[in-house]
Amino acid sequence: MTVELICVGTELLLGNIVNTNAAYLAEKCAGLGLSCYFQTVVGDNAERLSMVLKTAMERSDIVILSGGLGPTEDDLTKEVAAEVCGRELVMHEPSRLCILEFFEKRGTVPTENNWKQAMVPVDAIVLENRNGTAPGVIIETEQARVILLPGPPNELYPLFEESVEPYLRALTPQVICSQTVKICGLGESRVETMVKDLIDAQTNPTIATYAKTGEVHIRVTAAAEDAKAAGRLIKPTVKELKARFGNDIYTTEEETTLEKAVADLLVANDLSLTCAESCTGGLLSGRIINVPGVSEVYKSGYVTYSNKAKRRLLGVKKSTLQKHGAVSGQVAEEMARGAALAAKADVSVAVTGIAGPDGGTEEKPVGLVYIACCVKGKTTVKGYQFSGNRSKIRESAVSAALSLMRGCILEYFSKVTFGKKD
Amino acid sequence: MTVELICVGTELLLGNIVNTNAAYLAEKCAGLGLSCYFQTVVGDNAERLSMVLKTAMERSDIVILSGGLGPTEDDLTKEVAAEVCGRELVMHEPSRLCILEFFEKRGTVPTENNWKQAMVPVDAIVLENRNGTAPGVIIETEQARVILLPGPPNELYPLFEESVEPYLRALTPQVICSQTVKICGLGESRVETMVKDLIDAQTNPTIATYAKTGEVHIRVTAAAEDAKAAGRLIKPTVKELKARFGNDIYTTEEETTLEKAVADLLVANDLSLTCAESCTGGLLSGRIINVPGVSEVYKSGYVTYSNKAKRRLLGVKKSTLQKHGAVSGQVAEEMARGAALAAKADVSVAVTGIAGPDGGTEEKPVGLVYIACCVKGKTTVKGYQFSGNRSKIRESAVSAALSLMRGCILEYFSKVTFGKKD
Repeated sequence: MTVELICVGTELLLGNIVNTNAAYLAEKCAGLGLSCYFQTVVGDNAERLSMVLKTAMERSDIVILSGGLGPTEDDLTKEVAAEVCGRELVMHEPSRLCILEFFEKRGTVPTENNWKQAMVPVDAIVLENRNGTAPGVIIETEQARVILLPGPPNELYPLFEESVEPYLRALTPQVICSQTVKICGLGESRVETMVKDLIDAQTNPTIATYAKTGEVHIRVTAAAEDAKAAGRLIKPTVKELKARFGNDIYTTEEETTLEKAVADLLVANDLSLTCAESCTGGLLSGRIINVPGVSEVYKSGYVTYSNKAKRRLLGVKKSTLQKHGAVSGQVAEEMARGAALAAKADVSVAVTGIAGPDGGTEEKPVGLVYIACCVKGKTTVKGYQFSGNRSKIRESAVSAALSLMRGCILEYFSKVTFGKKD
Repeated sequence: MTVELICVGTELLLGNIVNTNAAYLAEKCAGLGLSCYFQTVVGDNAERLSMVLKTAMERSDIVILSGGLGPTEDDLTKEVAAEVCGRELVMHEPSRLCILEFFEKRGTVPTENNWKQAMVPVDAIVLENRNGTAPGVIIETEQARVILLPGPPNELYPLFEESVEPYLRALTPQVICSQTVKICGLGESRVETMVKDLIDAQTNPTIATYAKTGEVHIRVTAAAEDAKAAGRLIKPTVKELKARFGNDIYTTEEETTLEKAVADLLVANDLSLTCAESCTGGLLSGRIINVPGVSEVYKSGYVTYSNKAKRRLLGVKKSTLQKHGAVSGQVAEEMARGAALAAKADVSVAVTGIAGPDGGTEEKPVGLVYIACCVKGKTTVKGYQFSGNRSKIRESAVSAALSLMRGCILEYFSKVTFGKKD
């Protein structure tokens, strides 16, 4: 079954906002086993929207439109869709009451425009929107199923997940399930080479790799008559991937991020953590602290951007700075050791590097970063050469620091034979 | 003149990546005064890509395609475009040499596939790609101008700016210039209300507002026979905006970010800075340190996530923590004062709040954040109630902290009458 996406909005055509709705809907549809071959963006213009919708209905089974359901005159997605599908618009009493209630809750009154939002095409399926005043609408025609959804993500996402996903799931004879195997510390091309034979031989389940900063995700997707059968299809492939990548896999759970995996490892082993950051300047701590509940293990951290701060807060020796320079394995090591001592932490990680655009030399080019991790007194230091702009180099350093921490903690507990080269 | 975008890539159709290229190209084209009515995403499939390209060439003057210029068999954008335009592909010697040089620099050799990238349609304009092996291509046909660009942003952006932008600028009879007025510390609806009369009355220049986290940007765009004339059209509107928003405008320069504006203010006044962060946990420092050259004023910072760290590193009183709780104006104030003392900094900023999803109470709900800024001993404290998820609340707090810092520094120097309520 094929699906096609149409995102409506002048702000998309002007490039004022990035089309995250398309990515969200596309990923959701792929997860439901629907094939998406086209996505279109069009403005709030009746003629062009009508043209795009007609084309989509001709070539796809399901057409999902988002945006243009607001109360203003500019918003005409519903009006155009009703006309293309040959349906009149009628007042939908439950939607009218929802709008009334929505405004009452906020202590305000609807404007005359808002009642337009309670008008729906005859015989349409109306989907309640708990986060806004525009209901979702499904129009089933002989040619295609047309689904109209609001544009704001905080309305679109819950509406899709509560109402549209079950509707679409019921249409597809097969259940599509997937599992993501997340790998850190190995490059994309290395991972691709290691699974090329599996990708080449894939049928059901299918295997796809996705590169992220400092990580590679492998998604295994199976189609079957029910979730249990799909799970049975996925299991051997995930097992094979585990055998190939071992401890480079940090999780096989969808919602677990690398920082969450590291935080979980710290909490499970009752290890406290501190960070000492130079070029990343707080980003590493910032990312770790995005994990809810990490306060159990993360108490304090240091941003030591100047040499003086490295000496004063972390006790890095003046002679080490003079002899090796601030961007060196030796300074990274002293930063990590010093931070562990100062914060009385079991685990510490230190980052020092040249994020650019200035400050690079032939010997120490922009992108050179040293990261040290100290676990209960045992310190590991690694040098990296990242590419990209200042922001990209700093992000890469944060991901590498998380990977290194994870490796060092696992190694400390000798749960694994760590030390794969990459 | 109309332009249409076609982004080619299966990863876009699957929702694995967000289509930032479309937003980039759309914004650039709008800035050039080109009208964009359609954007399409299609996969690496000859038949469907051909269909989409033909439709685009029929209805638009310029068609820009990005993606699908890689060396693999899957990449077929150039082959399809050449066929649709009725042109043969021939070896382009300069591109062949560029590819050779590209690999030599990296100490590797091209694969057989790579030579495919040096093939270009007969009579095409070839655009050198300094960051990759796929050159850009412009095919001028009677129906439309078709521009092929590589997909990776680090290749697409410089190629567009160096070669495509001048090409497109030469096509348009009028010059389009714009200036962005960036405002911090005021909400979107407040800003919109304050410029509604200008927007309603707009012709040339046009005015549009864009909401960002903690900021609102107003873009003033004019069309004229040359840049000087466009500048003359823009000037009175920018002047009017300056009169209306005063010091809430932090810059009128395109490339200046809020953190850059704050860093510039510190450097210009020779003020050193430190940050003490609880719920933002390093993100504020991380954002400030993304400004190149900020090392002149930013030496060290503190991530004090636990109460103990707030006491140990910043000297926050136990009694203050007990009496008011960690998330309070009083603790924020002591954090800021303590950080300034510890780091011997002229300016300090402290953030403490509840980022959620847990930890909220009726009295102190999730999203409550206190920010204190101390400039040479004078401390200002403000409370905020942000909404959204953990990540959004933390980002909002970082932006608010930057706005507050800016306000406090300006106030200290009495360069302005600060203290507008929002």
